[in-house]
Amino acid sequence: MTAVPACLHRSRDAITPALRAAVDRLDRKTRHQAAYHFGWITAGGAPAAAGAGKAVRPALALLSAEAVGAEPEIALPGAVAVELVHNFSLIHDDLMDGDEERRHRRTVWKLWGASSAILTGDAMLALAQEVLLDSGLPTAAPAAGLLARTTRHLIRGQVQDLSFEQRSHVAVADCVDMAAGKTGALLSASAAIGAVLAGAPEAAVDALALYGDQVGLAFQLTDDVLGIWGDPAVTGKSVHTDLRARKKSLPVSYALNQGGTLGVELAAWLSAPGEPGEEELRRAAELIEAAGGRDWALSEAARRMALAEDALRGVDLDAGAREELLALGRFVVDREV
Amino acid sequence: MTAVPACLHRSRDAITPALRAAVDRLDRKTRHQAAYHFGWITAGGAPAAAGAGKAVRPALALLSAEAVGAEPEIALPGAVAVELVHNFSLIHDDLMDGDEERRHRRTVWKLWGASSAILTGDAMLALAQEVLLDSGLPTAAPAAGLLARTTRHLIRGQVQDLSFEQRSHVAVADCVDMAAGKTGALLSASAAIGAVLAGAPEAAVDALALYGDQVGLAFQLTDDVLGIWGDPAVTGKSVHTDLRARKKSLPVSYALNQGGTLGVELAAWLSAPGEPGEEELRRAAELIEAAGGRDWALSEAARRMALAEDALRGVDLDAGAREELLALGRFVVDREV
Repeated sequence: MTAVPACLHRSRDAITPALRAAVDRLDRKTRHQAAYHFGWITAGGAPAAAGAGKAVRPALALLSAEAVGAEPEIALPGAVAVELVHNFSLIHDDLMDGDEERRHRRTVWKLWGASSAILTGDAMLALAQEVLLDSGLPTAAPAAGLLARTTRHLIRGQVQDLSFEQRSHVAVADCVDMAAGKTGALLSASAAIGAVLAGAPEAAVDALALYGDQVGLAFQLTDDVLGIWGDPAVTGKSVHTDLRARKKSLPVSYALNQGGTLGVELAAWLSAPGEPGEEELRRAAELIEAAGGRDWALSEAARRMALAEDALRGVDLDAGAREELLALGRFVVDREV
Repeated sequence: MTAVPACLHRSRDAITPALRAAVDRLDRKTRHQAAYHFGWITAGGAPAAAGAGKAVRPALALLSAEAVGAEPEIALPGAVAVELVHNFSLIHDDLMDGDEERRHRRTVWKLWGASSAILTGDAMLALAQEVLLDSGLPTAAPAAGLLARTTRHLIRGQVQDLSFEQRSHVAVADCVDMAAGKTGALLSASAAIGAVLAGAPEAAVDALALYGDQVGLAFQLTDDVLGIWGDPAVTGKSVHTDLRARKKSLPVSYALNQGGTLGVELAAWLSAPGEPGEEELRRAAELIEAAGGRDWALSEAARRMALAEDALRGVDLDAGAREELLALGRFVVDREV
């Protein structure tokens, strides 16, 4: 496992007080559920220090300001806002997907019901905009506009993801588009929002946004490979997680679209009912690999990472921040595949 | 029934093209559900002209700009944004409340499921901010900040409303606070947002916001009276709607807090299980009236309306727009009680 980049610790320390102050604006009940979700308290309200995620998005936001030569502090409202939008989407997605656990703790809907999850998610989405717009920065409006458009793409990705469950055929391009919305959009906004808040030139903002988009896609491609072939000891998830759910992930959609006897067998398996057995799961993983799904996803992830790095190298950025962004991108993507 | 004020027709005509253009930004599936919800198409996608609500909030937004001497056009992004936030809350509330019909049509969740209602609502909330922030107006940031804070209060009101269902006692002040969030906050923001977008002085913005707050509370007090004693032929709802749901509305919470034998009997009835019969409903309505709940709600509504009118008369506003605002407030509140 690659060492955790220092910027993740720095960003967690920098944003936690601001994130807590933002959450304190919420009504008592919503605040309680948000604080629980972030790992600050137990369900009963006792102080806790549960895993609150890696806070990759806030780290990108802070580095994004540094990359254009500004102090990271100017990006703080953006860092808090992207973390709130990310967690709004997690709380709503957990409800829609029926996921009962996140980071080894019960999810908000599981503890407090569907209405609470809907309202706490809604409140976080509104709060993200409030934090940005109350910052008093002259660049708050374009940053908030970026966040609003990004949220639209994020939602579109989730709409596509859910619709794929109902469809027998999903084109690779549609699957990539879904991942670009569901994973790429917010990473892209995170990597650009600090530069927007710092009032950086459009070329730098665009390069940082492109970097985030491509890192997001590379991450999703790798994550999808791990969801089929990942070692549970490394991923922390059970083996064949995505296969068990018969999920039309990127390697699966690639394999399906190769047609032939492998594709036909795979399509039949994906549309079969019931919980698949271990032998079936091994066979499905073999089919996807034989049809080239694994190799394609890994080479596509590498290609996307190269595009991400090219994007950052093509514009004038602070050298130290650029290196940290590149290291953070590799940390997010390069896991034990 | 009071005649529908001309400003409602004007505002519906003015905002519909802009609202449609905003909804067109959404992904195909979300756009379809939003267009259905607004009454523009049938569930199957055929063009329709179903009742889309009175669009009171956009009318307030447009008049708010005119009241401070600006052209109503400057308020158009605000008018579209408040209508989107209102409809985001309707779609999510219908799901949480399990309401199967709205404006005599099936609700979004009833037709397309809970996940669709969550995502379409989320998309409308994000779109509201996007429309404001993309307007290019130099006042977009304060207007968007107002809308974000307002959304927080709106959600707080819904959180309180749901929590009242679980509680046997609700203080009148808590009930008023809930109505101020659930009904007052967005009417207040609607009545102020046009002035904010026009860059009006704080005194005018505050007076308009106060007017909206008080009209909202007066409306809710009247609506709660109609929910108990309203004539179904006038309200379009069944008689005793709120009583049937044993809802702790404003007149009910007032009556409960009077204590005495009436209050005790009412409290026992509210916490009783099962669907109440007609005789029981008549008795509950009598108890609330005898404890003063009806008179209090009506006099409180009148007091709030007077405060609303005083607020508008206390600042320098365009006389014609002020009269239209006053007429619109009366139209919203003065129904056949």
